[in-house]
Amino acid sequence: MTRFGKYLDRGLKDLAREAVEGALASAGVDKGALQVAVVGNAAAGLITGQEMIRAQVVLRELGIGGIPMINTENACASSSTALHLAWLYVASGMCDIALALGVEKLSHEDKRRSFAAIGAAVDVEAVQMLIAQMQADQKDKPAGEASEGGGAGQSRSLFMDIYAAVARYHMRRYGTTKEQFGRVAVKNHFNGSLNPHAQYRERYTLQEVLDSPLVTEPLTRLMCSPIGDGAAAAVLCAGDKARQFTTKPVWIKASSLGSGQDHGPDEPGIAERVSKAAYEMSGIGPDEIDLAEVHDASAPAELILYEELGFCAPGEGGRLIDSGDVSLEGKLPVNTSGGLIAKGHPIGATGVAQIYELFLQLRGEAGERQVKGAKVGLTENGGGMVRNELAATSVHILTV
Amino acid sequence: MTRFGKYLDRGLKDLAREAVEGALASAGVDKGALQVAVVGNAAAGLITGQEMIRAQVVLRELGIGGIPMINTENACASSSTALHLAWLYVASGMCDIALALGVEKLSHEDKRRSFAAIGAAVDVEAVQMLIAQMQADQKDKPAGEASEGGGAGQSRSLFMDIYAAVARYHMRRYGTTKEQFGRVAVKNHFNGSLNPHAQYRERYTLQEVLDSPLVTEPLTRLMCSPIGDGAAAAVLCAGDKARQFTTKPVWIKASSLGSGQDHGPDEPGIAERVSKAAYEMSGIGPDEIDLAEVHDASAPAELILYEELGFCAPGEGGRLIDSGDVSLEGKLPVNTSGGLIAKGHPIGATGVAQIYELFLQLRGEAGERQVKGAKVGLTENGGGMVRNELAATSVHILTV
Repeated sequence: MTRFGKYLDRGLKDLAREAVEGALASAGVDKGALQVAVVGNAAAGLITGQEMIRAQVVLRELGIGGIPMINTENACASSSTALHLAWLYVASGMCDIALALGVEKLSHEDKRRSFAAIGAAVDVEAVQMLIAQMQADQKDKPAGEASEGGGAGQSRSLFMDIYAAVARYHMRRYGTTKEQFGRVAVKNHFNGSLNPHAQYRERYTLQEVLDSPLVTEPLTRLMCSPIGDGAAAAVLCAGDKARQFTTKPVWIKASSLGSGQDHGPDEPGIAERVSKAAYEMSGIGPDEIDLAEVHDASAPAELILYEELGFCAPGEGGRLIDSGDVSLEGKLPVNTSGGLIAKGHPIGATGVAQIYELFLQLRGEAGERQVKGAKVGLTENGGGMVRNELAATSVHILTV
Repeated sequence: MTRFGKYLDRGLKDLAREAVEGALASAGVDKGALQVAVVGNAAAGLITGQEMIRAQVVLRELGIGGIPMINTENACASSSTALHLAWLYVASGMCDIALALGVEKLSHEDKRRSFAAIGAAVDVEAVQMLIAQMQADQKDKPAGEASEGGGAGQSRSLFMDIYAAVARYHMRRYGTTKEQFGRVAVKNHFNGSLNPHAQYRERYTLQEVLDSPLVTEPLTRLMCSPIGDGAAAAVLCAGDKARQFTTKPVWIKASSLGSGQDHGPDEPGIAERVSKAAYEMSGIGPDEIDLAEVHDASAPAELILYEELGFCAPGEGGRLIDSGDVSLEGKLPVNTSGGLIAKGHPIGATGVAQIYELFLQLRGEAGERQVKGAKVGLTENGGGMVRNELAATSVHILTV
């Protein structure tokens, strides 16, 4: 993977080149041996105007052509979806060697364009109606109360508003505190400080996290993932061929993907459903997971995912972060890479970047942030929003 | 499928609903039985602003949720790519019942927006450089010679310019005539006149086709596919379960997808490579095909595809159209639906719409345009352009 960051001077092709050539070199696979390529990207259409054939545009530059190329989107879960499809090609026996690439160019000189692109991860028609309704409501208010901004800028805060609302619900129901959310951010910023590929490598105290600018109560800026660019690639190989290329293969034991659905407040949400399917597919339970990379688009999301992924009982997320068990030295380190909060979140690149972290950890190549004896890892990547549930979530379980 | 046409008052959700509910009803499959959904769309991002999660946005409206949903693009081959992925899920045994949907909303009150969206089917960075180069070149010319238009409008003519250049090459090399291209259009408009789902249902004489407004020599307007909207859906079922739902299953014998690559003028192009793979996968040769739906974005494209798909020898495409063998009453009717030229070409919907035509024909349900005794059909769907070759092509072979 590339280091994540804001690269106003780099394009999709350049970012993809670094990740793909790195993955091929690491795997010892020649580009001519690839039999299919699946590329996840979420925002290029609205940022650069490049739609429809992003895989072909970036891969032909690298001399990769002829093979089936799949362009796929699933908002922030775009490249875990790409990985899932590449896995499907290989696991089904259709192909022996597949490339999965996530690439994203999200930063733009005009920040509103980045926000507008992120805003396409929801039902835009429904949001337009919602905004029109809000504007109509505001006509009845005194001028001073009307909200500022709006338009494209509203898209970002809409997502963080949803995360904040979910966080407040969790606080009311389970007594979770803002400090506990803050501790998730402290942990992830610390882990990011040890990761050369992380966008942000500063460490912060709990007080600094709590004192950073408020986004939406209880979220402060240091609890939220930033805008950034980057790419990550993985080479997948049939199990019976892997030893031709490496003595240290990492195995995909489960690849599970699901979409949102209507359900009551006490029925399982998408992450619980999809992770359960992954546990069943792999025969590996949550208590056997050594480390996990999860979708901490905001700190409360990670805390709630502890529960949804079965790392602790419902309502116990706050206690789990307080216990230190999900810290680097704990029983089940979560987001050793720094997570989306510190490593960064170029949305279409995030899914494969999570896999990259597990790849390093499971092979014992994670340097200063190495989890000792890591044998089994889990990634959870979610994206988009339709009717109050994430549009897509995927879970992968990897082992050595 | 919906009838293709310009529906300024209909959105993606509405078009998708008609196609999906129609496909489910035809298959006798309840929406709750679907195990995966793959949706192809090419232009919604630039037409409506909806990116990333188009499948979820249109399918949740229909009460379909929870299952894996894949959003995929491959320019004009987007929904045949969706079909290919749905097929992969089912053929691999991963799922028993899958939905493939192609949906496109291409028409817009501001026509330039439609043209600009189509323009995203190429390497936009390369085209921007090309246009900048052309503009620099024109500075040296007398003012009268500078080309008009440009900007967004250029995107459409760029594609037709490429088709026209290929047509002129074929004319020079093989003596193919403008009249022969015209006969392809006459045939497809005639077939379209018999298809209630076709956008255009007028019949034209060869003279009318040749006399219609010139697009780029030798292409006239009636030789080119129009802009339109529409949707088409297919339900795929595992072979051993199909008889639970129907006494007339249509079988997918091959699903082949490829991308463009660099090659010399006498080396096989993408359609030849991908169709050869499909012939090998199915064990069915071109001489066994009873009818075909091919990607006649322009009439010369269809004529050249006769050769690339092996329906005749290289250079014999002109003779094949003259012979009448590809007409409705001929030995190998091509584009019985009217093809892209008459049926219409809402780009992301075209691939599954081709499958729909074969579905009707192979089941003997094609009404006035029924091909007698049709048992084996082929679809070819191409899309996008990178470095002078189509970015994607898929070929499917279906039988009863």
